[in-house]
Amino acid sequence: MKIAVLGTGMVGEALGTKLVQLGHHVTMGSRTPDNQKAAKWAKKNGINASQGTFSDAAAMSELVFACTKGEGTLDAIHSVGAAGLEEKVVVDVSNPLEFSPGMPPSLLICNTDSLGEQVQKAVPSAKVVKTLNTVNCEVMVDPTRASNPTMFICGNDSGAKAKVVTLLKSFGWEDIIDLGDIKTARGTEMLLPLWLSLMNVIGNADFGFKVVGRRKSE
Amino acid sequence: MKIAVLGTGMVGEALGTKLVQLGHHVTMGSRTPDNQKAAKWAKKNGINASQGTFSDAAAMSELVFACTKGEGTLDAIHSVGAAGLEEKVVVDVSNPLEFSPGMPPSLLICNTDSLGEQVQKAVPSAKVVKTLNTVNCEVMVDPTRASNPTMFICGNDSGAKAKVVTLLKSFGWEDIIDLGDIKTARGTEMLLPLWLSLMNVIGNADFGFKVVGRRKSE
Repeated sequence: MKIAVLGTGMVGEALGTKLVQLGHHVTMGSRTPDNQKAAKWAKKNGINASQGTFSDAAAMSELVFACTKGEGTLDAIHSVGAAGLEEKVVVDVSNPLEFSPGMPPSLLICNTDSLGEQVQKAVPSAKVVKTLNTVNCEVMVDPTRASNPTMFICGNDSGAKAKVVTLLKSFGWEDIIDLGDIKTARGTEMLLPLWLSLMNVIGNADFGFKVVGRRKSE
Repeated sequence: MKIAVLGTGMVGEALGTKLVQLGHHVTMGSRTPDNQKAAKWAKKNGINASQGTFSDAAAMSELVFACTKGEGTLDAIHSVGAAGLEEKVVVDVSNPLEFSPGMPPSLLICNTDSLGEQVQKAVPSAKVVKTLNTVNCEVMVDPTRASNPTMFICGNDSGAKAKVVTLLKSFGWEDIIDLGDIKTARGTEMLLPLWLSLMNVIGNADFGFKVVGRRKSE
C-alpha cells in the first residue's frame, strides 16, 4: 500500500520504518520539503521510502498516519487540507498532551471532545481512525514488547477500520477491540494520564493495558 | 476493623456485605437516620452490621468507604465534616460521572483536578485513598469475576495505603499498583469513559484492565 507518515519524530520514524519493512511504499511528510530528519530516514530505508511536505506525502498515499505531537496534529491536517485527504483513511495516533504547565502533562482537549473528533471535523470527507495512541511507539510496531496488550480502534467508517485492523495485525497486534465511532476516541485519549503515572512508577514504556474478564461479544 | 460504608446503593451494599463476611463491623451510613435500604441491609447482615447517618457511621469507624454516586460524594463528606474524619482513612471509590447531558456520561471533574483530590481538600486531616473506582462493584469484591485485573491505589499517606492494600488483598486482589499521591487519582477517574465504551461493546461489566508488559519495578 502507499502510505504517508506525517511527522518526523520518534513515532513517525518507528511507524515509517516498520511499514517499509512490511513492503509498503512510505512517504514521510513534514512542514518543509527539505526536512533533514525525513531526508535521512528516507535515505536509510531504501527505495520504498521517500519524503516531502505533508501535502506531498498525502497526495502520494491512500492511507495517512498522523504522527506529529498532538499539539501539531490539526496544523498538519489543515496544511494538507480537506481536498487532499478526501476519501482517504487518516489514522490518528497522536494525543493532545499539554506539556507547558509542567509535568505530568494534562490534556489540551478531553471529556466532551477529543483530538480524534477534531481531526474528523477538520476533514469531513476523510475516514478518520483513532488507534495506537495508548502505547509507546516501540510497542505500536511490536506489541510483544509489552506482552500483547489490547489495542483499541475508533472511527465512523467500517471499511477504513477494517483496513487499519489488517495493518495492526501485520504489526503483530492480536487483541483489537473496535470501540465504535470516533467519539469513543475520548476514552482512549483520556487513558494517557494513567499511562503517564504508570510509566513514572514502572520506569519504562514497555507496557500496555489488556482488557481481561468476561468478553462475551468477542 | 470498624468500617463505615457511606452510601446505600449497589456499591455500598456490595462492599458492606463483603466486609461483614470478612468479619469486620460495618456501619452503613446515609443522609437520614432511618434509611430503609440501610435498615434492610443491616437486618439481613447480622450482628456485625448496623446503620445510621453518614456522621454516625464515620464516628463509629476507623476506616470509611465513600460509596455514594460521584455527584454526592462531597456532600456526604461535608455532612460528616473534617472533625469527624480527622486522622481516619477515607477510601474514595466513587467517580465524578455527569449523566445529565445523556449517555454516555462525561466527567464533572477531570484533567487538572479529580474527585479524589477534592475529597482530600475537603477533609485535609483525613487520609484519603482512591481505589476500586476502575471496576464494577461486583468485581470490586471479587476480582476473579474479571480474571484478576490490575487495581490502582492513590493517596498521600503510605500507612493508609498499606491498610487499604491489606483490605484489597482480603477481597482477592492480587495485582495492585500504587500510582503515587492523590493527584494520580486523575488518571484512574479518567479511565471511566473507556470503561463505559467497553461495557457498551462487551455487553457486561465483568471486565477490567490488566497492566501487562515489562513491569520491572514490581
